[in-house]
Amino acid sequence: MRQVAILGIGQTKIDEHWDKSLRDLAGEAIFATLQDAGRESAEGLFIGNMLSGIVDHQNNLGTYIADWVGMLISEAVKIEAACASGAAAFRSALIAVASGELDSAIAVGIEKMTDIHPHDITSALATAADADYEAEQGVSFVGLNALIMRRYMHEYGWKHADFAPFSINAHTNALHNPYARLQFAITQDEFNRAHMVASPINLLDASPIGDGAAAAYIVPLDEVGQVGRSVVAVAGSAVATDTLAIHDRPEPLFLTAAYKSAKRAYEQAGLEPQQIDVFELHDAFSIMTALSLEACGYAERGKAPRLGLEGAITPTGSIPICTRGGLKARGHPVGATGMYQIVEVVQQLRGECGETQVDGAKIGMAQNIGGSGATIVTHILKTS
Amino acid sequence: MRQVAILGIGQTKIDEHWDKSLRDLAGEAIFATLQDAGRESAEGLFIGNMLSGIVDHQNNLGTYIADWVGMLISEAVKIEAACASGAAAFRSALIAVASGELDSAIAVGIEKMTDIHPHDITSALATAADADYEAEQGVSFVGLNALIMRRYMHEYGWKHADFAPFSINAHTNALHNPYARLQFAITQDEFNRAHMVASPINLLDASPIGDGAAAAYIVPLDEVGQVGRSVVAVAGSAVATDTLAIHDRPEPLFLTAAYKSAKRAYEQAGLEPQQIDVFELHDAFSIMTALSLEACGYAERGKAPRLGLEGAITPTGSIPICTRGGLKARGHPVGATGMYQIVEVVQQLRGECGETQVDGAKIGMAQNIGGSGATIVTHILKTS
Repeated sequence: MRQVAILGIGQTKIDEHWDKSLRDLAGEAIFATLQDAGRESAEGLFIGNMLSGIVDHQNNLGTYIADWVGMLISEAVKIEAACASGAAAFRSALIAVASGELDSAIAVGIEKMTDIHPHDITSALATAADADYEAEQGVSFVGLNALIMRRYMHEYGWKHADFAPFSINAHTNALHNPYARLQFAITQDEFNRAHMVASPINLLDASPIGDGAAAAYIVPLDEVGQVGRSVVAVAGSAVATDTLAIHDRPEPLFLTAAYKSAKRAYEQAGLEPQQIDVFELHDAFSIMTALSLEACGYAERGKAPRLGLEGAITPTGSIPICTRGGLKARGHPVGATGMYQIVEVVQQLRGECGETQVDGAKIGMAQNIGGSGATIVTHILKTS
Repeated sequence: MRQVAILGIGQTKIDEHWDKSLRDLAGEAIFATLQDAGRESAEGLFIGNMLSGIVDHQNNLGTYIADWVGMLISEAVKIEAACASGAAAFRSALIAVASGELDSAIAVGIEKMTDIHPHDITSALATAADADYEAEQGVSFVGLNALIMRRYMHEYGWKHADFAPFSINAHTNALHNPYARLQFAITQDEFNRAHMVASPINLLDASPIGDGAAAAYIVPLDEVGQVGRSVVAVAGSAVATDTLAIHDRPEPLFLTAAYKSAKRAYEQAGLEPQQIDVFELHDAFSIMTALSLEACGYAERGKAPRLGLEGAITPTGSIPICTRGGLKARGHPVGATGMYQIVEVVQQLRGECGETQVDGAKIGMAQNIGGSGATIVTHILKTS
């Protein structure tokens, strides 16, 4: 297959967009992407979305959005892999262009979550878990993550307060991202005293939902001419699958699918974990930050909170994460999140991140998780 | 890209499967496919499904099903394109294998529709239309098709009774398909007197929903050894997109996306319409049969009912359609239908169709429609 590059990116602010519909938001991200890419259309449109059928009473998103943005194009489908839908759509678009089936494609992640009652969103999000064996027993998605975090703390002896640096870093970075939902800093004390959601997960361990869309324009690498800025190429793309229900996993405290998909992506890119300059990981809950860092080779099992306490995860640290706010503070519009991560890595590799720019960033990784570690998609991007 | 072939197929009977879950049905089709292919696993799993989030409170179907069938494999995602989800998943699997990204893949269409109240299914099916401009105004999906049929009858002067041969052919063929939901014949008189659904569409113009799953095993063509039967290769695969809402179409009586996707598939295969031996089309409603035949080159505009009245569409006619019962009598488990069509074309090309076998069938076409003609996926298969 031929190599592919990202010619353009676009995103909307993540917010409660009461005045914008699903298609308005998707269109906003797509038009921004077209402008950034200097193109007028694309041959394919790959939509990452999880909840449109439930929240917006709208399926067939491929055509819905292609129609809205005036691209009645050949290829337009929705890809769904729960909260990993965004990265899964990006991967489908990559394969379509890399294979030569298409010469250009836009991957867009879109989610509009605030159109229904928050109680119903909790129920909708539980469709990422196993309906028969988890959700119908009354376990919410945050409840499942709380079980994992409680066990992790018990097993490795960490206190809840030790997870604070993950959330503090995310919020500090979001201050400088105009697209972030929560553009404010938090303190250790606020973290410790935040309202409980599902013990031990409190409000400042958990990412906020939101409405938003983010997109990227994909072309063959050899078709990118002189664009007057760094060309960002795709160096690795891999998916791995674990059991859907947590109770089926021999090691519920290790993200096997994150390990497998990152390992494959590292191999494709010919890289070691230590060569990654910036890592946009899936910090839906602070415990997921810890588990992702461990699975991807940045800490031994049970030791990731130390990376936070030592400052290694900040933009000037050894493994900068959540440099634009992460899920925690940029926000987590579920099916769109994977595309926000891709967009943010591109911004870092182009050197467009201002106060949270990672100096000399040339290689970035984005990892998107669907379910409680069930479907994990990893991409490595680099300047070429 | 390399050529690909279908090594195995599998399907469940379409029925009200009260005793089987979504994953039971998908597993049944997948295990049958593995057995037919003589394989134990596959590198990728592409799930075509439209309604699992709404009906089954289950998303993340890729992992959900990969986990259930014991294939914790690299690639597992759901593809959604409303009622064209099945063929869209097949196409995603094709591209993944043809590109060399994967060496084997299973595409499976799965839908479980009878777990919720029929009123709610009507509402769920309306998510294939434009929520803001069609569904929320109270137009059901059958209502949209009724508007098209009414206009077609007005414009071209056909009577409702003239559409009967389409449904009679489908039911006659389904008599011999053990997987069909409605295994009984119907008469012209019964067609004329059937209960009205949305005028002019009555119960015998409309396909029944149902629960079912169908699957195919895809490999590179050059890896198929001596299998002791005809090898079925993929000769064409194309998608086209029209406006989502019918009111946005300059010609609502012509399926532009069917025309475009069939044209591209014919070109890929190097064929004329008249060289297709069997055509599994998307007869969700009898009007869709007429429009599909016209768009794909078998009748001039407004003249397709004549093909029915002249017997051209039967297994011994010039363009046999719905040879296993079509959506009308085999049944229409929406996201699975596209894969049933693929499976049935393979059965025809292998010569496994008994009483409804099309003599000497070597080339077959399957066409799957999402929305009221909005997303149309066409595949051409041939023995090699």
